[in-house]
Amino acid sequence: MTTLDDCRALDAQDPLRALRDQFTLPKGVIYLDGNSLGVLPKAAPARIAEVVAEEWGQGLIRSWNTASWFDLPQRLGDKLARLIGAAPGEVVCTDSTSVNLYKVLFAALSQQKDSGRKLVVSERSNFPTDLYIAESLCRERGFTLKLIEARELQGPDSVLTDEVAVLMLTHVNYRTGAMHDMKAVTAAAHAAGALAVWDLAHSAGAVPVALNESNADYAIGCGYKYLNGGPGAPAFVWVHARHAGKFEQPLSGWWGHAAPFEFTPHYRPAPGVGRYLCGTQPIISLAGLECGLDTVLAAEAFDNGRGAMAALRAKSLALTDLFIRLVEERCAGQGLSLVTPREHAQRGSQVCLGRGEGAYAIVQALIARGVIGDYRAGDSQMPDILRFGFTPLYLGFEDVWNSVEHLVQVLESGEWKREEFNRKNAVT
Amino acid sequence: MTTLDDCRALDAQDPLRALRDQFTLPKGVIYLDGNSLGVLPKAAPARIAEVVAEEWGQGLIRSWNTASWFDLPQRLGDKLARLIGAAPGEVVCTDSTSVNLYKVLFAALSQQKDSGRKLVVSERSNFPTDLYIAESLCRERGFTLKLIEARELQGPDSVLTDEVAVLMLTHVNYRTGAMHDMKAVTAAAHAAGALAVWDLAHSAGAVPVALNESNADYAIGCGYKYLNGGPGAPAFVWVHARHAGKFEQPLSGWWGHAAPFEFTPHYRPAPGVGRYLCGTQPIISLAGLECGLDTVLAAEAFDNGRGAMAALRAKSLALTDLFIRLVEERCAGQGLSLVTPREHAQRGSQVCLGRGEGAYAIVQALIARGVIGDYRAGDSQMPDILRFGFTPLYLGFEDVWNSVEHLVQVLESGEWKREEFNRKNAVT
Repeated sequence: MTTLDDCRALDAQDPLRALRDQFTLPKGVIYLDGNSLGVLPKAAPARIAEVVAEEWGQGLIRSWNTASWFDLPQRLGDKLARLIGAAPGEVVCTDSTSVNLYKVLFAALSQQKDSGRKLVVSERSNFPTDLYIAESLCRERGFTLKLIEARELQGPDSVLTDEVAVLMLTHVNYRTGAMHDMKAVTAAAHAAGALAVWDLAHSAGAVPVALNESNADYAIGCGYKYLNGGPGAPAFVWVHARHAGKFEQPLSGWWGHAAPFEFTPHYRPAPGVGRYLCGTQPIISLAGLECGLDTVLAAEAFDNGRGAMAALRAKSLALTDLFIRLVEERCAGQGLSLVTPREHAQRGSQVCLGRGEGAYAIVQALIARGVIGDYRAGDSQMPDILRFGFTPLYLGFEDVWNSVEHLVQVLESGEWKREEFNRKNAVT
Repeated sequence: MTTLDDCRALDAQDPLRALRDQFTLPKGVIYLDGNSLGVLPKAAPARIAEVVAEEWGQGLIRSWNTASWFDLPQRLGDKLARLIGAAPGEVVCTDSTSVNLYKVLFAALSQQKDSGRKLVVSERSNFPTDLYIAESLCRERGFTLKLIEARELQGPDSVLTDEVAVLMLTHVNYRTGAMHDMKAVTAAAHAAGALAVWDLAHSAGAVPVALNESNADYAIGCGYKYLNGGPGAPAFVWVHARHAGKFEQPLSGWWGHAAPFEFTPHYRPAPGVGRYLCGTQPIISLAGLECGLDTVLAAEAFDNGRGAMAALRAKSLALTDLFIRLVEERCAGQGLSLVTPREHAQRGSQVCLGRGEGAYAIVQALIARGVIGDYRAGDSQMPDILRFGFTPLYLGFEDVWNSVEHLVQVLESGEWKREEFNRKNAVT
């Protein structure tokens, strides 16, 4: 049996322990929801205050030049590139994940418009907003959205046929934490003549991503989860160099123009990924995103030349392994099941536990104790889920012990039943 | 001749004078560029710091509920509605102006798709990003973008024929400051069977706007100009109640879903203007926008029940009238021409002066003296322009005197020629 002392020993040996000092964490909280909203970097309040008081307040319109606002989407994109296996100049930080998906999926469909291929394939369990955007674009552009289960991508009866124009997947599933093999799946899509569009919302800053090595076509992702960019921080777009300057996206605003300050009445897209910019970006929120990116890049100090994410990945897996082991050792017979894959190569940086009864109430009881995870409803394929994100930047092994200790107490005391009672009998 | 003492007397009598105390203005600066980026409200640094440290840092994911993040786009929209003649529940603050134009123009074109009408009409001198978005959508949706001069909207040969699906105009021209009669132009569009889409980028917070009274169809606009929302603050969307719940826009992200937390795989648009939301919004930048909106709404204390913009409009016209008069009295023979209409009903809250030679250098020389306006290049229709925005919230009549005094000195001393020389001979 694993003990609290074992966990403390792991913390004592953890080379990344110091990275936690980059963050302000609320007292009494064990935060296992960095996959919904990352925590506050200590550097962010001062940097944001500087942007507000100095760049906005004093510099005013001059700050477009003096504070390099115009370069922000690319400058932050270059930082992010180091975390997702991309090259400088290939990424821009801008807009929301949904808007960016619209851009890249539109470009991918334009690229396939004369191919005769009419299917966009995605997982039924993909994050809903991705499906909503795809549904809308398919209707507009004369394609059909086909929703599948992950297993249907493999084997002799694979859905990847010569009818498929685009395979659109989220790399790490938001609900289960299951991770695709990006390189293998992209190769299978390409072998079938399809393009591969990846959503990295639960990957960027969470697991190593190798976009160029995987030969992916398009990718988008989120700035406010594992990248710690702040609530609603701008998202990002990556386009493979072989496509970047060739295809247009329809949100053709001034910032994506080849010569935005010529104020010409006709649109001429910027070369490369710059054409995936559209309107003016929220500069203050971009400043928060930069602070978040810097917290992840700080892991490069411990990477032995393999990149920040290699260093973080080892700890992420150790944390999730420990959580799984402790739950299995200490919560046996409590009706919990492991939904997240046990195999490292298939696991993101979260662990999800299925539960037949009271999952929502258990999560609420944990939150009341300061252990913040979240709940996701089940469906015909899957039980209700308790979801726990593990961010190696600011979580330690003792945190894992303590969160399982709280879970044990919530389950054994029946405390969650009071939450359930309160919920069902709430006066509304 | 008007004197400095006359200007000081006007300040002494100005009932809105106290509104200036809401802002932090850089020392030694007369800021005539609030039409590009509004100045910093004094309340913004503390409010933004609170959102960062408390709502993000301490509340974390819980702030979606406890800090009402989810309601922000509508709550700010309701505030803004009071400034643009809209009703509560009709406006959302979100995304960028360009992205929002894409949404509403798409919806308007959907509405006209079976009408047989194939033209989208706009002004050649419209803000370029609006034309770029329209160009893209027209190409996609099988329409043609027809660019006209404003005068072609009137008379027996009006371009508003039964071929026109949508008339898309910016209410106040970004370059000349000329303002359309929204009610009359909308009526003319409707009489021809066309829909009217208005860009309020240079109107919201600058001039009274009466969207419902004008019977407009769709409107969008900018949060960081006269609304003082901060650099790249989110923009807004208004849709007339008769269309709001009927037509869909294609950026169908989770925040526009009827039941976003049900995580269903199919999109079902929210009722009303909520369906014009898409992805997660930059919460910190939205907080800045709220501070900006509050600075304009503060004018309601002086409005005698006619709304903030009625009170501000009287002062705006007095400021621009004074600027025009002083330029005419004191810069005669200096090669300046008045580009902005003299008639009040046709004038926004800016004054543009044409100049055949050295316009850019004159603006640079003024900026070097702390008088910040901007330069816009001319074309075949129009000379190069010196553009000056007058924001009644924080500018006084003595500021107008001083800015003209600097202009006189720049022109009479030939100082601008040194700027011109430096520019032409810059080592790059």
